[in-house]
Amino acid sequence: MCTLEKHGDVFVLTLTGSSDVDEHRFGPSAIDSILSAIAKAKAEATPGSALITTSHGKFFSNGLDLAWAQAAGSRAGARERLLYMVESFRPVVAAMMDLPMPTVAAVNGHAAAAGFTLALSHDYVIMRRDKGVLYMSEVDIGATLPDYFTALFRAKVGSATARRDVLLRAKKIKGEEALRMGLVQAAYDSEEQVAEASMRLAKQMAGRKWAGEVYAEIRKSLYPDLCGVLGLDIRAVVSNSKL
Amino acid sequence: MCTLEKHGDVFVLTLTGSSDVDEHRFGPSAIDSILSAIAKAKAEATPGSALITTSHGKFFSNGLDLAWAQAAGSRAGARERLLYMVESFRPVVAAMMDLPMPTVAAVNGHAAAAGFTLALSHDYVIMRRDKGVLYMSEVDIGATLPDYFTALFRAKVGSATARRDVLLRAKKIKGEEALRMGLVQAAYDSEEQVAEASMRLAKQMAGRKWAGEVYAEIRKSLYPDLCGVLGLDIRAVVSNSKL
Amino acid sequence: MCTLEKHGDVFVLTLTGSSDVDEHRFGPSAIDSILSAIAKAKAEATPGSALITTSHGKFFSNGLDLAWAQAAGSRAGARERLLYMVESFRPVVAAMMDLPMPTVAAVNGHAAAAGFTLALSHDYVIMRRDKGVLYMSEVDIGATLPDYFTALFRAKVGSATARRDVLLRAKKIKGEEALRMGLVQAAYDSEEQVAEASMRLAKQMAGRKWAGEVYAEIRKSLYPDLCGVLGLDIRAVVSNSKL
Repeated sequence: MCTLEKHGDVFVLTLTGSSDVDEHRFGPSAIDSILSAIAKAKAEATPGSALITTSHGKFFSNGLDLAWAQAAGSRAGARERLLYMVESFRPVVAAMMDLPMPTVAAVNGHAAAAGFTLALSHDYVIMRRDKGVLYMSEVDIGATLPDYFTALFRAKVGSATARRDVLLRAKKIKGEEALRMGLVQAAYDSEEQVAEASMRLAKQMAGRKWAGEVYAEIRKSLYPDLCGVLGLDIRAVVSNSKL
Repeated sequence: MCTLEKHGDVFVLTLTGSSDVDEHRFGPSAIDSILSAIAKAKAEATPGSALITTSHGKFFSNGLDLAWAQAAGSRAGARERLLYMVESFRPVVAAMMDLPMPTVAAVNGHAAAAGFTLALSHDYVIMRRDKGVLYMSEVDIGATLPDYFTALFRAKVGSATARRDVLLRAKKIKGEEALRMGLVQAAYDSEEQVAEASMRLAKQMAGRKWAGEVYAEIRKSLYPDLCGVLGLDIRAVVSNSKL
Repeated sequence: MCTLEKHGDVFVLTLTGSSDVDEHRFGPSAIDSILSAIAKAKAEATPGSALITTSHGKFFSNGLDLAWAQAAGSRAGARERLLYMVESFRPVVAAMMDLPMPTVAAVNGHAAAAGFTLALSHDYVIMRRDKGVLYMSEVDIGATLPDYFTALFRAKVGSATARRDVLLRAKKIKGEEALRMGLVQAAYDSEEQVAEASMRLAKQMAGRKWAGEVYAEIRKSLYPDLCGVLGLDIRAVVSNSKL
C-alpha cells in the first residue's frame, strides 16, 4: 500500500507497510494503490510539480508478491498469478514514464527486482549508502525478466558492463558501487539525508517551472524502445505561446 | 552564413556573422549556406581529407532562428516557420553523417539547441574550456525536440545520465563537465588552442588516408537508429583491391 | 583449429595453431572446429557449467583468413570467399550468445577484427596487459564491417566514444586503455595470471548454479538488436519449481 502527500509543490508517494521489516511487496492491491497515487499526482499536476517516491524501514521494495503467487497452491496457478502481477505492474512503469513532472526515487533500503525497477523508473535515484541495496534477483530465482524490465535497464543504464552485472550476474549493489555504475545520482549516510537531498532536488527541478506535458514527452523521447514495449506514444508538443 | 576554406587536406567550415556577438542562428539562408559548403567538401573529397567546423566570436551557434519564426506575426505562422527550419536542418545532420571524411567540431563559444546538435554531428568535438557552453534549451523553451535531435543524442552520448542531464534537465555544460560526461574529446583554454588541437586531430585522421566511402559507411553503421530517422541507407563497401 | 577440455565444471576452448606466432585465423575449417566445440559444451552443459575461450602464443586471433580469400586468385573469388567466411562466422557469435552458461574470454595476445569480435562475444573479457592488443582493422583495410560485428559492439560497448575509437578510428588498444574504455573486466601481467583470473571468475560464476536456459535467455534479452541480426529468438523461461 502507499500514501500520497503534498509538501508545497512536491508530491511524496510513500510505500507503507505494517512494520519496519515489511518488504513492500507489489501484490494486486499494492499495485492498484500505487497506480491510484500516481494518477492523483498527474491529475493535480501544475508547472512546478515534482514527485518523490520513498519508503520507511528496511525495504524500499523487494518486488512482486511471490508469496501471493505461490499461495495459489499449484505451479500453474502460481505462474498465472505471477503473470498477472507482471502485467499489472507494467502500467506503473508506464505511468512513471508519462508523468508530467520530474521524479525522484529516495531509496532508503533494499530495492530488489520490481522494487529496483520502480526506483529506476524515476528520473533520479538517491540512495542510502549504508543500508540501501539494489538487486535484480531473477537469474538467481530462475526466471527471465519481463520485457519492460530489460527495456528499462537498457534505457536507463548506459554502461554495458553495469547492465551485465545487474541482470546477468545478479550483483547486490550498495551505494558507492551504484554511484560508480551510474545507477544512482547520489548516496547518503542516513534516512534523513536521503530525504533532505531528495526534497532539495525535487524542489530545484520544480523551481524550473517546466511545462509538464513537454517534460513528459521529452522524457519519453529519450527512451523510444522502452516506450514501444510500454505502449506509450511519443508526441511533438510546443507549449510556448511565442511559437 | 559560412565560409569553406582548404588548409592542405583539411576543409575548414567557418560559421560567420556580422560581429563577435552574432549568435550564428540557423535560418533558411544559413542552412542553405552550410549545406552547400558540406556538399562542396564532399565533392572535392579525396582519401586523406578531413573537415573542421568552427566559428569566431562568442557563439558557435545558438540554434535555429527563432526570431525569424516569430517574425511571421502569428502563432500559426511562427510554428510553420519553425517546422520549416527543423526540416531544412535535417539534411545538414544527414550530410555530416554521410560525409566521406573524419570531422571535427571546434567549439569556441556557446553551442545551444541546433547549434549543439550540429557540433555533436561531428566525429569529434573539441571545446573551449573557459567560454564554451553546451546547452539543449528545449525543455526550458517549452518545446519537444525533433526526432533526429534525440536520435543523435541517443547515438552519440553513451551515458544515460548524461543524456538525461542534457535533454531533460537542460543543463548548461562547460568544458570540464562536458569532458566528464563524454560529450567532447578535449577542452582547451583559448580559441588558439582549440584551433590548433582541432587542426592537429584533423591532420592526424587525414594522415590515415582512409577510403572515404568506407569511412562514411562505418560511421553510419555505428548509428543505425539515427540513420533510419535521417533517411540514410547503410551499405556494405569494400574498397580494398585485394578483396 | 581448437580443442575443448573440461576442468571440473569449466569448459576450456583453446584456439590452437602450429606455432607461437600462429595468428589463429578463422578459415572454414577453424570456424567448423569452433562451432563443434561450442556445440559440445552446450550439449554437455549442466547448471554450474562455465566456458573459457583462450589461446597460446602471440595471437588470440587475427580474424578471418584473408589469405585464404585472396588465394581464390581473382577479386571476385576473393570476395566470394570473404563473404562465405563472414556468413560462416555469424553462427559462432550466435552460439556464444545462446550458450547456457557464463563465458569468459582469456585474451593473451592480439585480438583483431573477427578475433576481437569473438572475444567480445563472451560475457567477460580478461586481457593480458603487456602483450594483449585489441584492434578492429576494417577501416584501415578498406572494408565495412558485417552487420553482426557492429551490432555486437553497439550491444557490448556502452561508451559512444569508445565505439567510435574502436570502429571508426581503428585504435590499437592495450590493457589499461581497454579497461578504461569498458572493453574488458580486468588486465593482468602474464599469461599465467590471465589464465588464473579467468578460471577463478569462471568457477565463481559456475558456483552460482544458475539454470542455463534462464541464463542464456536473460543474456539475449540484454541485446535484442544483436539477437535480431543473428536470427535468435528471445523467450520467457521460468525454471523455478515454485513458480
